[in-house]
Amino acid sequence: MPVDPLAFARDLVRCRSVTPAEGGALDLLARTLAPLGFAVHRVTFSAPGTPDVENLFATIGEGRPHLVFAGHTDVVPPGDAAAWSAPPFAGEVIDGRLIGRGAVDMKGGIAAMVAAASAFLAARDLKSGGTLSFLITGDEEGPAVNGTRKLLDWTRERGVVFDHCVLGEPTSVAELGDTLKVGRRGSLSGTLVVEGTQGHVAYPHRADNPIRRLARILSHLYARPLDGGTAQFQPSNLEFVSVDTGNPAFNVIPAKVEARFNIRFNDRWTPASLRAHIEAEIGVAAPVGRWRVDWDPTVSECFLTPSGPFTQLVSDAVFEVTGRRPEPSTGGGTSDARFIKSACPVVELGLVGTTMHQIDEAVPVAELEALTAIYRRILERYFAG
Amino acid sequence: MPVDPLAFARDLVRCRSVTPAEGGALDLLARTLAPLGFAVHRVTFSAPGTPDVENLFATIGEGRPHLVFAGHTDVVPPGDAAAWSAPPFAGEVIDGRLIGRGAVDMKGGIAAMVAAASAFLAARDLKSGGTLSFLITGDEEGPAVNGTRKLLDWTRERGVVFDHCVLGEPTSVAELGDTLKVGRRGSLSGTLVVEGTQGHVAYPHRADNPIRRLARILSHLYARPLDGGTAQFQPSNLEFVSVDTGNPAFNVIPAKVEARFNIRFNDRWTPASLRAHIEAEIGVAAPVGRWRVDWDPTVSECFLTPSGPFTQLVSDAVFEVTGRRPEPSTGGGTSDARFIKSACPVVELGLVGTTMHQIDEAVPVAELEALTAIYRRILERYFAG
Repeated sequence: MPVDPLAFARDLVRCRSVTPAEGGALDLLARTLAPLGFAVHRVTFSAPGTPDVENLFATIGEGRPHLVFAGHTDVVPPGDAAAWSAPPFAGEVIDGRLIGRGAVDMKGGIAAMVAAASAFLAARDLKSGGTLSFLITGDEEGPAVNGTRKLLDWTRERGVVFDHCVLGEPTSVAELGDTLKVGRRGSLSGTLVVEGTQGHVAYPHRADNPIRRLARILSHLYARPLDGGTAQFQPSNLEFVSVDTGNPAFNVIPAKVEARFNIRFNDRWTPASLRAHIEAEIGVAAPVGRWRVDWDPTVSECFLTPSGPFTQLVSDAVFEVTGRRPEPSTGGGTSDARFIKSACPVVELGLVGTTMHQIDEAVPVAELEALTAIYRRILERYFAG
Repeated sequence: MPVDPLAFARDLVRCRSVTPAEGGALDLLARTLAPLGFAVHRVTFSAPGTPDVENLFATIGEGRPHLVFAGHTDVVPPGDAAAWSAPPFAGEVIDGRLIGRGAVDMKGGIAAMVAAASAFLAARDLKSGGTLSFLITGDEEGPAVNGTRKLLDWTRERGVVFDHCVLGEPTSVAELGDTLKVGRRGSLSGTLVVEGTQGHVAYPHRADNPIRRLARILSHLYARPLDGGTAQFQPSNLEFVSVDTGNPAFNVIPAKVEARFNIRFNDRWTPASLRAHIEAEIGVAAPVGRWRVDWDPTVSECFLTPSGPFTQLVSDAVFEVTGRRPEPSTGGGTSDARFIKSACPVVELGLVGTTMHQIDEAVPVAELEALTAIYRRILERYFAG
């Protein structure tokens, strides 16, 4: 009997898998995939300064082509549980909507993938006609250090080769399948440290106020957009997210000010070219005086999956179920696709994300069933040969 | 036998009167002034949130004119005592210099005033030919809440009227008597709070980054000097001393940023006209969006004592002792003259300030004696009739 997407999604929501807690979600997944014939591997990764995280890799079939469904079972905290219409981990269905933390992001998506695989495998024996895998992490909403990246290393070390990946993040904007994420901008962060000379405000000529120099740098950078966008991407954008001095005295000119910033960048840039550009521009704005940029080690590279047979196949599956063609998109934040892109072409297709991370996160049951149908059409077309 | 300025300065330095501690300094002053014929009053003031502070008011003679010597016995902390050439509260004389915290700022000045008064009164009985007072606080280096301002209120309530004041702050720049402080710029502080809308850095169009708006405001204010100075004063100056956001996340656009600033202003402005001007300019730079200025309640008004017979008398006394005419000045930071100016015309004249607040604060013994001579000439000329 095939897995029911709603029942499975409810069971997943009932697992309290707030990052980095496994919460029983991967156990449930393993118990469900194994009877379908999947070889299930549980892998825990560790790193200093971050919590240990459990991950799951499950695979069935043999040889090429190899399609991998990717996703995460961890969720963000529920916030004020009392503010929810139903308890955030109860998995209640009200007015045709499953309410709960992770219903949309992305336990609903994983349930649809598992239900689709279950139905597909019940109708067709994969045998040597290809391989289907699940690459599931418990560290997408957290530091993302002990999750997908390391799980990909783990599969690579075991000789696993992927041909294509569908990541089930909630990418639909207004209606299911209206958007197919084929790329994401990269992300680069840094802290600009501007140093000056401390002194008394009454004698500014004896001091060197770093805030004055920072103001020139900010104006200079704000006045020069990084680019005007590219064929596939919106413009790159720099945001200063925090400026901090920490000087409690009104009569003291501070010695130092720090400005933290993040850049979302398109395929016009690499992290290296962007770092060089930013430092050159700061140098123009502040030719005199000490400053430096401490670049954050966490870098997300930009990714782009070009249009081709695979994106067409996914688009056809969406059209078959919903009657609409998804719009290719490269907007929005980062996802684990930034890691997967190094292993194989990846697209992101999932539920409507409107309520993700919010109070009363919820998915219509009909949408969950429609997504299951889309994923099943993808499997059928992909393994049709 | 008249008070010796060096001996008295050494005794004062030995009192550990780091603000707000009295440290025995006012006791010593009272024990010294009373035998000279002064009526000595000890007054302690309190205010919520600030330490209680002891003050001293001593007076001799009767009627007009009424000259008041003003100053403070409190000192700033010594810092690393081990870094001093001699213990900071030992009052040691090395190579003709008295070393110690407060030697210059301004126990040396008070010792010179007391020694001058003692010598003057030994030679001449004041009787009804005028009044000489000492207005001494223990709260000049601290919050300045329970000090000179309240002591002036206290005297006013008792019908005391001052005609002129000499404040003994270390105003000399390179040589004793090279500078006569006849005014000080005012000081006004505020916190500019710029509010925006929090959001994810990947979706800046859904947020409103207040740092972007603050950058425009800073550039606008920096580009427009407040004034070019006036006949007696250097230009007014605005310094931002701290910008703070406190946002630890690289991927979140903050909802708020605060920028603290201080303005030193000349006689072109009143606190009210300056507040209005700053708010108008911010409004030009940021016509859209929420911001406000929280003005700090601590305001120092600008003061100016115009040239006239009193400043001439002081200048003549300096010339008689040192052979040089002091340069009138209105530069530098604030002092208790900001309070005294409301009671009577005030000038500031004291030791060379180079080592004040530093390790190895020290005054040459010869300079202490010369200042005593200057103060004595002031008394003689002032009470000559």
